[in-house]
This record gives sequence, C-alpha cells and structure tokens, in this order.
Amino acid sequence: MQSNTGSYKRVLMGPGPSDVDPRVLEALSRPTIGHLDPAFLGILNEIRTLLQYVFKTNNQMTLAMSGTGSAGMETCVVNLIEPGEPMLVCVNGVFGKRMSDVATRAGADVSTLEVAWGQVFDPEAIDQVLRRKPAKLVGIVHAETSTGARQPIEEVSRVVHSHGALLLVDTVTSLGGIEVNVDGWQIDACYSGTQKCLSCPPGLSPVTFSEAALQTLEKRKTKVQSWYLDLTLIRQYWGSERLYHHTAPINMNYALLEALRIVKEEGLENRWNRHWTNHCMLKKGLAAIGINYVAQAGHELPMLNAVSVPEGVDDAAVRKQLLEQFGIEIGAGLGAFKGKVWRIGLMGAASTKSNVLLFLAALENCLSDQGHKFPKGASIAAAIESK
Amino acid sequence: MQSNTGSYKRVLMGPGPSDVDPRVLEALSRPTIGHLDPAFLGILNEIRTLLQYVFKTNNQMTLAMSGTGSAGMETCVVNLIEPGEPMLVCVNGVFGKRMSDVATRAGADVSTLEVAWGQVFDPEAIDQVLRRKPAKLVGIVHAETSTGARQPIEEVSRVVHSHGALLLVDTVTSLGGIEVNVDGWQIDACYSGTQKCLSCPPGLSPVTFSEAALQTLEKRKTKVQSWYLDLTLIRQYWGSERLYHHTAPINMNYALLEALRIVKEEGLENRWNRHWTNHCMLKKGLAAIGINYVAQAGHELPMLNAVSVPEGVDDAAVRKQLLEQFGIEIGAGLGAFKGKVWRIGLMGAASTKSNVLLFLAALENCLSDQGHKFPKGASIAAAIESK
Repeated sequence: MQSNTGSYKRVLMGPGPSDVDPRVLEALSRPTIGHLDPAFLGILNEIRTLLQYVFKTNNQMTLAMSGTGSAGMETCVVNLIEPGEPMLVCVNGVFGKRMSDVATRAGADVSTLEVAWGQVFDPEAIDQVLRRKPAKLVGIVHAETSTGARQPIEEVSRVVHSHGALLLVDTVTSLGGIEVNVDGWQIDACYSGTQKCLSCPPGLSPVTFSEAALQTLEKRKTKVQSWYLDLTLIRQYWGSERLYHHTAPINMNYALLEALRIVKEEGLENRWNRHWTNHCMLKKGLAAIGINYVAQAGHELPMLNAVSVPEGVDDAAVRKQLLEQFGIEIGAGLGAFKGKVWRIGLMGAASTKSNVLLFLAALENCLSDQGHKFPKGASIAAAIESK
Repeated sequence: MQSNTGSYKRVLMGPGPSDVDPRVLEALSRPTIGHLDPAFLGILNEIRTLLQYVFKTNNQMTLAMSGTGSAGMETCVVNLIEPGEPMLVCVNGVFGKRMSDVATRAGADVSTLEVAWGQVFDPEAIDQVLRRKPAKLVGIVHAETSTGARQPIEEVSRVVHSHGALLLVDTVTSLGGIEVNVDGWQIDACYSGTQKCLSCPPGLSPVTFSEAALQTLEKRKTKVQSWYLDLTLIRQYWGSERLYHHTAPINMNYALLEALRIVKEEGLENRWNRHWTNHCMLKKGLAAIGINYVAQAGHELPMLNAVSVPEGVDDAAVRKQLLEQFGIEIGAGLGAFKGKVWRIGLMGAASTKSNVLLFLAALENCLSDQGHKFPKGASIAAAIESK
C-alpha cells in the first residue's frame, strides 16, 4: 500500500491479525451511520447475541470494547479491582506478564505465580498460593500467544472459586479456534480480540462479565480509574438506556458482526475441528523436517504453533524470505523466545489445508537456501498423508 | 443493515460521525496485513507526516491512538499527570466536564473554572485562577461539541505558559474544519478524533505532544496508570524501534491515511473556507425562520451549529422525521441542553451546499407538519441568496 490505490495481499500465518474473509472486508466498507441510529443499535444487539454464542454464555453484559485485546484486558482489571485489593496473576509468557503490569498500574496488590515459558499451571499450585494469600481476582491466560500453550481452565476455576475469588481469563487467541465455555467453566470475566480466530481486523475487544463480576462492579466504592473503559458507564450505552458514552467505532462493528455471522454459519464445533485438523497436519509436516514445538506436550495450541528455530538457521532471514518471496507472514519469538522461536498461526480464515501445504513447501525452500541439513529421508508430503 | 447484505445510507449532519468519502470506505476494505509488516510501518510514517500537516506541527510525537477521541483525551491526561499533581480544567460544556472527570480518575488535584454553556473563557479569568492556585497542566476545549462554541486559544496559551504550566487542548471537533495551529499557538498536548472534520469513520484518535510535554513524560516518577495508553511504550512502536506494544487497528489506519490524503489534496485553508461558507449559508437560512444559535455571538463553530429548538416544537419528533423521511441525522442536545438544542453538523465531506439546502428544506417541512408558525414573509431561499 505504498501507492495511492495499491494494497498488499499477504498470507497471514503469524500470531494475528489473521486473514480476513472478503465478506468482512465488504462489511467494513459500508457507509458509516450514527452511533445512536436505531439501525446501528440493532447491530449492537445482534453482536451481543452472537458474542454470547461464541463465548458460550448467557451473560447479559457481553459486548465489544472500542480498543484491541489489550484494552479488553485492561477493562476487566480496572473494573474489577479497586486500589489495594489483592490479585493473583499466573505468568507463563508475555500476556500473563502484561496482565500483572496492568494490575499493578490499577493499584492492585499483585502476587504472581510463575512457571517456565511454554509450561501450563497445575491447579494444585494455584490452590497452594491462594491458601497462603487469598485474592479477590485470579487472572490466567487460556491461550498464551507468546508460547503456544493451552491452559485447561475447568479445574483452575474450581480451585479459584473454592477460595471465593473471581476468575479472569484471557481468550484473545483461543476464542473461535478452540472451546471457550464461559458459563460451563464458570469464568467471571473474559476478554478476547477480533483479529485472531474470529478473523476480523483488529480494533475491538469482546468482553463478557458474569453475574458475580457484575455485582462486584456495582459494589465498587471508588470510580473505575479509566473513564474510557468504565463499564458502569458503557453498560448504559449497550443496555436499554442507550446513553451516549463515546462514539462507537461504527465500521469496525459492521465487520465484527459479519465475522461472527460467518462463525455461526460454520458452527463453533466445526470451526474447532477445522483448526485441530490443520494443526495436526502442520505438526506432522514440521516433525518430518525435525522441527519441534516449545509448548508443554499435550498442550499445544492448534491456532498458534510455536516451534524452535532449527540450530544454525537465521531466524530473521527465513521470516524475511517467507514474506518477500511468498507473501507469508509468520511471527518472531517474543521476550525470552526472541530469535529462538517461530510462531506459526493457523487462525480463523487462515486455517486451511492450502496454507499448511504452502507454508511447509515454502519453509523447506527457505531452509534449503540456508544450507540446512534435513533429517535423512525426510518427506513432508509423505508425513502429512500418513494416518 | 438488518439483513445480511443491506446497508443504510444517511446524510450525517449530527455531531459526528460525518459522511465518509467513498475513497476512504474503499481503503478500509483493503486486505488486512500485519502490524509489523514493513508495508504497514510505511503507512504509519505517512500518517504521522500528514497529521503533522493538519495539526500544523513539527512534533515528532504525532500519532493515532487506537481508540476514539475520548481515548485521546485520557491519553493526554494520564501521560502528563502523576497522582496529586494540580490540573486546571476549563468547563463550559460536556467535554470540559468529561476532561475534569478523567483528570480526577487519574489522581490529579483538579480545579475547574466554569462559565455558562455556550460561553467561552476570558484569558484574564484563567490568569486569575492560576495566580491563586498554580497548575502543572491546563486543559481546555477548542470546539465544544455540546454547545457549538469556539474558544480562541492563542491568548489562553500565553497566560498558561506565563505561569509555567502546560497547555492541553481538545480539538476533536475542530481539526480539519477550522485552524488548529499546534506550533503557532504553542499547544503542548492536543488530541482529536477521526470522525468529525477529517471524515474518517470513528475508531482512532490523533494525538500530538510538544517537546516540553515529551520532557514531562520522560521525567515521570510513576508509571502511566493505563498500560494501553502509555506513550512511553507506544512511542517505541511508532518510533524507529518498532517494538510491539498492541496490535494496531490495521484497516482503520488505512482509512485514516486515505482521509488525510484527501485533506491534503483539498488544502487545509480551502477546507476551512468551505466549512465557513456553508456555515454562513446555513445560519442565514435558519435566521430567516427565526432559529437562533446558542453559542456566544462571534464564537459560533462552522462545523457544529448548536441552535435553540423553537418554542412549542417537539424536539424528538422533528429529529425522528428528519431521519425517517429524509435520512438526515442531526444531534440532540446533551446535558443542560437536552430537549432544548439541536446540533447540526457540517463536518468534512458533509459540509456541502447541497446538504445545507436539503436540510433547510427538510426542516421547514417538519416544522410545517407540527403547525409551527414561521415569521411573516420568511423565505429561506431568499435569505441564503442575499449577500
């Protein structure tokens, strides 16, 4: 998009944004209308209903915040925490770390429980920490985008609630790609992003609050520190009062609605199965050329495949060649994984068999150019066709 | 947009969003690419250059925040204020009031100077308040969207700086429609919105910081309370480091770039003149049917015409009829002006002679339907053609 009318076409196989369906792009470009127009308020209602479907919840307070996933994280923390209140954050990657930073800035009395990057948390360990120091709120990441690890939530939820705390879960990368069951798992507050497995451009953050979270919000003694993210005000716009708060990002909401309709048409379970099938194919192909996952075995995320850069291979050179020769974007490692890890996304519309095959062939080409020695008799094609 | 493919076409003559040029809608719908893609980073650079043009500034820290205008307001306050620091906010409408609320939540020691809605501030009065109680930061609204009043900034700036304070100016509604001269008027921090006179959909907030504001930011002893709006982090993404902070709203940035290119092609002064000419025509037409402005005489904003609802006329019924019969959206009064004021926008692409004529004719029609008695011999057509 360097020229006035030009645009780039990429194959988005990084940690998000993911490829966007042409129907969603078309919806984005519809004429802007007002944020208090009855037609737009109808769109907000439909978005709520569809977000309830993807979150698997009946929570009345289910909406899209006017910012990206990180704004959703901050929304949940600043609305549920008052200065001095204890919060436990589970940290096993960049996004758990970010949550503890956000909580500290919100004035929470923050404790962290840390395990090595790529590992997931044992509910027992969380139980022990809460025995030593109770918390009002426990925050954990369902799908850690920096490590590709999937954290089981059900057992964690039981432990957290046995201590009378509220459970906050980051589902930015998981929502729409694997099961997120807000009501079934008794999650109290949950946020996500639009640009991962929902395959909508970035710019909004779906958020949902349980009845218990709502009561906590209503019982606050202090004002929420962020005016822009204050749900006590925003609920009066999304609710029946329709009071003006800020001007909603109209066209982004058109896009989110269309993206959610596509999820509904495919069906959540079909969508999860598609993500799983393509992940398995990629994993087999990568194994055939000796490339391994960094997440704890059995906890690899299907939509975010974090793998070790093979010994002696120039991380940045391979990513550059993939982008420039094949238009394929993959992600670099963050933080502790910088230079050591590739993050290969198979999210939403980008989770296709074609993308898996294209990527494997392109990667083989890039590695060959670097003189990489493949395992003897390695055959990606044979590997992915084997049962 | 109730059906799968439907969309509404409105004439957006409210307080924003304004009508969006088809070129901007087309840019919105281009394929999404990654937030670290070199092609996207080039787009951010071009946006900065064009924002420097519309703000009339050389400030290096000039960027678009990933939220609407209110997020821009909060960005400026939370980055410049540390807990306990004194801030003076000038309040003559909803948005000054909002700024004092945001500042209170940021922990500022807030003082307010208030004048009646529709009035503007005398720099003398600000001087007197600052003599009694110095402030680190003084906040004022250039174009008060709730009252349609234009606040001259130059003299206020001199007073504020004579007391060693920093000046924060809200230009959400003014930018692109009347002169905003950040460097010439020595504004230290300034925020705007995309959906007013820039005629881009809502979702981003242009912000610029002077060298003095930047130094204040760098000297902070405490972390910025909002992680999402923390400019000490965000500048490392917009700057040459290109460090990941949050995923930028890619397509919204495509749209902003195209909207800014359109402003540049028209030329800022031509754009201001167009806004002025159409405002004068509307004002004459409204005067011919006895409708008066609520802003202090000589300070009426050209892009936001706030007028009294004529005695005996049903405010909501007229707005409903305008929307349903003519597709025209105008704004209701806010706060103290609820039910008493209409806000007629002539912003960006919506500031056209056609819209003025259409609106006046449609309004006359609605008022007739209500049995409204027009002044004797009233003729809108004759009035607007008179010199």
